[in-house]
Amino acid sequence: MSSNHRPGFTGSTLDREDLVRTNPERLAALAGSLSARLLALDGIDPILDDQGLLTWKSMAESDPGSELIFLGVQDGKPRFTEVRPDLPQGAARSRAIFRMLDILPPEEASTYAAARSLIDWHVRHGFCAQCGTPTEIFRGGWGRNCGQCKAEHYPRVDPVVIMLAEHEGRVLVGRQPAYPPQRYSALAGFLEPGESIEEAVARELHEEAGVKALAVRYVVSQPWPFPSSLMMACVAQVESDALTIDYTELEDAFWVTRAEVAAVMNGEAGAKFLPPPPYAIAHTLFRRWLAET
Amino acid sequence: MSSNHRPGFTGSTLDREDLVRTNPERLAALAGSLSARLLALDGIDPILDDQGLLTWKSMAESDPGSELIFLGVQDGKPRFTEVRPDLPQGAARSRAIFRMLDILPPEEASTYAAARSLIDWHVRHGFCAQCGTPTEIFRGGWGRNCGQCKAEHYPRVDPVVIMLAEHEGRVLVGRQPAYPPQRYSALAGFLEPGESIEEAVARELHEEAGVKALAVRYVVSQPWPFPSSLMMACVAQVESDALTIDYTELEDAFWVTRAEVAAVMNGEAGAKFLPPPPYAIAHTLFRRWLAET
Repeated sequence: MSSNHRPGFTGSTLDREDLVRTNPERLAALAGSLSARLLALDGIDPILDDQGLLTWKSMAESDPGSELIFLGVQDGKPRFTEVRPDLPQGAARSRAIFRMLDILPPEEASTYAAARSLIDWHVRHGFCAQCGTPTEIFRGGWGRNCGQCKAEHYPRVDPVVIMLAEHEGRVLVGRQPAYPPQRYSALAGFLEPGESIEEAVARELHEEAGVKALAVRYVVSQPWPFPSSLMMACVAQVESDALTIDYTELEDAFWVTRAEVAAVMNGEAGAKFLPPPPYAIAHTLFRRWLAET
Repeated sequence: MSSNHRPGFTGSTLDREDLVRTNPERLAALAGSLSARLLALDGIDPILDDQGLLTWKSMAESDPGSELIFLGVQDGKPRFTEVRPDLPQGAARSRAIFRMLDILPPEEASTYAAARSLIDWHVRHGFCAQCGTPTEIFRGGWGRNCGQCKAEHYPRVDPVVIMLAEHEGRVLVGRQPAYPPQRYSALAGFLEPGESIEEAVARELHEEAGVKALAVRYVVSQPWPFPSSLMMACVAQVESDALTIDYTELEDAFWVTRAEVAAVMNGEAGAKFLPPPPYAIAHTLFRRWLAET
């Protein structure tokens, strides 16, 4: 099984050109250039072409009331997205994106992820958290500032640890009640203020499964734009395979062998569970773990 | 040189007991118990005892107008901190903490880091970013909610990548204008929405030094409570040692050999620069890199 599976939502060829963001004249020139392209969206979901790729349209099609976000430059073309004034607040609850992710290549999903996380952040952060005043977009869409108290606000990225507990060659898989039937995955949770990645992994394994981490190794990461997580996948050696499951978080959890995980990832008949989809970091984590000697 | 240097701000023995946060009766009982302790602070800085450790006081000393934060349980005692109504808005700009970090052990600094990041977040997030209404503390201080639009807001953790570019056995060090004289460190920058750790490392090295990352390996992480970063330290193999420095970010940067870094970390006379302090992840990163064979 290949270990060089590209994690979901990674590999965009977009050059973010962050120096442009702080240069209003350059930004205006790029937005007004004939080569500039606007990401085509339906609500907050992408519109795919007949090859299953993102579609881009002319800047003339942007809504005059929109806030423009500069995504970067790709194939020599400045790329933008917009926060439309008519975007419904519940747009991010649509499930349509998950069907598209079955066909959208990771590098295209990567470009889209930045746009989606930013749009969703702007929609939910129109007011200054420090003083309550309406804020304005700045830095080419990579922040909002407050004219009243002068606070600057930047888009959130919420780090999440996702991990396989490992004990004597077996790893722990679990399922949350909201998962599709038969789906199991690695355990996961938000990293909190005052924690390292390694400490967050140990805390989550303790809280959710009652196991004690002895050593934690980082494996791989990806963004997860629902709305704006950074998924950091790890493997943790644990002291014992005795479990104390937190049933408020997990519906079920059990230990699986390498052969059992291989059967799952190969889609064999009789496999013990259904794997996470290829665009989820747990999928990459299982593949990387299988590839370890 | 030892590679098991404990990263700064890690190793707290506090059990966060997150289930207590969502149980108001249990929370009130813990806050009212005789064993409960309140972190002693001067503004947002800790008050150290004569052994250089954190000091704790009775809950009776809390300000009646404070918002209470439940930090967790340590040594059998519930531990709290408070957001005082009289906390000056610029309290976090005091530099006193950096002198204390020279003596505060990492595990004590770790407990303090959670308190500091949370207090600072509450002070700067009293209003709902979605609708502008004043919010209220909930979940034992690990969030704020809006009575108007029902939005829930959680404390930020801002992931930062910090990395050594490596080329033919040498690594790249740089200094920002604000550093103390002679101090050099690893390059660093905030991870952005839509990026993996590996991609953020590659982008920052490209932006700041004009080098192309071929492979990125994660090394170690720590929280950095100024105000609420997660520092993720990496080493990146790069294609060439030719540099294009972004002088808006860096004042200077140069390549150093393993022997030169060892001289720096051993504090030898004639060493090429002064190292980052032991509580900074760059210090740990240099030590781990030196320990690699």
